[in-house]
Amino acid sequence: MSKSRAEAFSDGVFAVAATLLVFSIPVPDVHASLGPALVAQWPSYAAYVISFMTILVIWLNHHATIDAIRSLDRPLLLLNGLVLMTVAVIPFPTGLVARYLEVGHDQALAAFAYGLTMSGMALAFTLMNSYAKARHLFTTPFSLLGFSTGMLAYPLGTVIALFNYQLALAVYAATAVFYMVLPLLRERRMRQSR
Amino acid sequence: MSKSRAEAFSDGVFAVAATLLVFSIPVPDVHASLGPALVAQWPSYAAYVISFMTILVIWLNHHATIDAIRSLDRPLLLLNGLVLMTVAVIPFPTGLVARYLEVGHDQALAAFAYGLTMSGMALAFTLMNSYAKARHLFTTPFSLLGFSTGMLAYPLGTVIALFNYQLALAVYAATAVFYMVLPLLRERRMRQSR
Amino acid sequence: MSKSRAEAFSDGVFAVAATLLVFSIPVPDVHASLGPALVAQWPSYAAYVISFMTILVIWLNHHATIDAIRSLDRPLLLLNGLVLMTVAVIPFPTGLVARYLEVGHDQALAAFAYGLTMSGMALAFTLMNSYAKARHLFTTPFSLLGFSTGMLAYPLGTVIALFNYQLALAVYAATAVFYMVLPLLRERRMRQSR
Amino acid sequence: MSKSRAEAFSDGVFAVAATLLVFSIPVPDVHASLGPALVAQWPSYAAYVISFMTILVIWLNHHATIDAIRSLDRPLLLLNGLVLMTVAVIPFPTGLVARYLEVGHDQALAAFAYGLTMSGMALAFTLMNSYAKARHLFTTPFSLLGFSTGMLAYPLGTVIALFNYQLALAVYAATAVFYMVLPLLRERRMRQSR
Repeated sequence: MSKSRAEAFSDGVFAVAATLLVFSIPVPDVHASLGPALVAQWPSYAAYVISFMTILVIWLNHHATIDAIRSLDRPLLLLNGLVLMTVAVIPFPTGLVARYLEVGHDQALAAFAYGLTMSGMALAFTLMNSYAKARHLFTTPFSLLGFSTGMLAYPLGTVIALFNYQLALAVYAATAVFYMVLPLLRERRMRQSR
Repeated sequence: MSKSRAEAFSDGVFAVAATLLVFSIPVPDVHASLGPALVAQWPSYAAYVISFMTILVIWLNHHATIDAIRSLDRPLLLLNGLVLMTVAVIPFPTGLVARYLEVGHDQALAAFAYGLTMSGMALAFTLMNSYAKARHLFTTPFSLLGFSTGMLAYPLGTVIALFNYQLALAVYAATAVFYMVLPLLRERRMRQSR
Repeated sequence: MSKSRAEAFSDGVFAVAATLLVFSIPVPDVHASLGPALVAQWPSYAAYVISFMTILVIWLNHHATIDAIRSLDRPLLLLNGLVLMTVAVIPFPTGLVARYLEVGHDQALAAFAYGLTMSGMALAFTLMNSYAKARHLFTTPFSLLGFSTGMLAYPLGTVIALFNYQLALAVYAATAVFYMVLPLLRERRMRQSR
Repeated sequence: MSKSRAEAFSDGVFAVAATLLVFSIPVPDVHASLGPALVAQWPSYAAYVISFMTILVIWLNHHATIDAIRSLDRPLLLLNGLVLMTVAVIPFPTGLVARYLEVGHDQALAAFAYGLTMSGMALAFTLMNSYAKARHLFTTPFSLLGFSTGMLAYPLGTVIALFNYQLALAVYAATAVFYMVLPLLRERRMRQSR
């Protein structure tokens, strides 16, 4: 399969999933006063920002992976499909966190479900990268180190969620920020070493 | 019509339909306890996974068809539109199965409607392939054998649904898995025969 | 602006609007029996099919227009945006027709709103084509004749809707079918005349 | 990163966000009469048109920016992601304005939230452009003047919203129209000066 059409489909799923996140921010019930209602649903805004940043980072990393790969064989396409299946479901746990943090019960379970989804996504991504590495499909030396972070951070956050959901959400947000900052640090180091 | 723009539109419909499947997984009513509610809606997760795999497989097969075709004439574009019309509606029977398996009545009818949609999709796909074959639009010898499986499996599952909805859903899931595994087996055989 | 990115954005809007039509087919209320409910909402299926065919035809015609145009200047991009604005709103009148035909009141008004939307779309499309023609942006002789059909049929259907909504819906469906068949007839005549 | 895939993802988000705006126009409650209900929800249509025009204009300006840029480095991709995050959220304030103008209370707050979102978008866009300018990533002399308008108009509209929400909405609509007309005026002047 040509890389371009696999990219087009993947980019489509990433773009739609990211844009559907807006549905986790509901228009408040018109029978109440808008001001307090908008303030009360702050978890929706936080969940939107964290999930959008996360999908953005997955997309950037996905792009880096596909770019470094020679060609996509069938198993890789299926593993890519598995990644997309876990990405497309992100609006669901985002809605869970947004809604249950607002109403103020079962926050731990909502944060746990969020972490479970992200752990599944990190696992699917690791499977895709590991397969490509094992089959020597990478054209450039490709470090799986960066990807291991998600593979550690998300399950860790998932377990933490059961005891302290705020800390778990901070771990999820920090993981997205880490993936944003990591390449900047790498580039700076490369520029300095030259 | 250039193949590229027909592909772009088709890929868009596939990607959006796959991503909209997430709406078959509702955020549970906040007046109940989240844990039991998340467990009770397991059919949503199953329906999401089966339908996502199915759309992924249709997309892969669609790609293989378009790749093997010289150019798209008007009738083929319309038949392609028919395929897309049956793909874009998949979130509806997915929601039916998810919801009626959870509430525990009319499961057979929901599974029947699911199978009917998939049979319609398989029929549209077969029409598109048969037309392209009849008009000699395929550049490479193109076996319709693989596609016949869906043309048999989905109507069969649809009939089974009326008697045993669990078995019908297993048939739908197995059909998606079959289409994932088939090319892997083919590739292995081709590699061995070389 | 490069044609390719204007096409990508337009194709995106077409694909998303077509796929969002599925939301005009609701999962029936689980407190009732599914069989009668699925039968009762037949207007949803009809509305889905008519609107999907219509968007498909607009996309095909849009493609033909963009293909025949040398380049897109600013006014053309804005007129294209106007076309897209009327296409993206189609799920709304589709939902109106689906819902009000099912409940059995205000069908005429729903069909009127549907026709008004389509008339707006036909007008926007005619403006885009007329501007391109006036500015000599077409590279090939481009007949506006085919496009005039919609410019006549939709306002006609809109007026008919006030007296006979079934006939109006038949006009909308027939217009989509006409645009599907017209190029086939043209191609046949061209093949015969050669 | 290749510009083409960043464009594909961005175009996807723009197209989906624009098309999701249709959900701010609800199918009226079937228990009431359709005619008055359709008239009463005129703010939905107005909000749809203003937001669609705005997203169209952001997309056109985004395109102009990316076209003028040599290549996208990591920080620029992240700033681009920030722009997309503010674009993808536009359906939310659009729904707020549509709903609260219809019910007739908290209109000022809804218009304030709308302006705040647009100010955030203008800020993100300005950051992206300023970064590209500072890093000399523009291949052609690129005036930030046009973009400053949004940076002034949206915060101004946001403040006005607290005193006169109709005027604020007029400012938002006028800003979109300004960005549509500005390049037309520029082109005319360039054509006259030649």
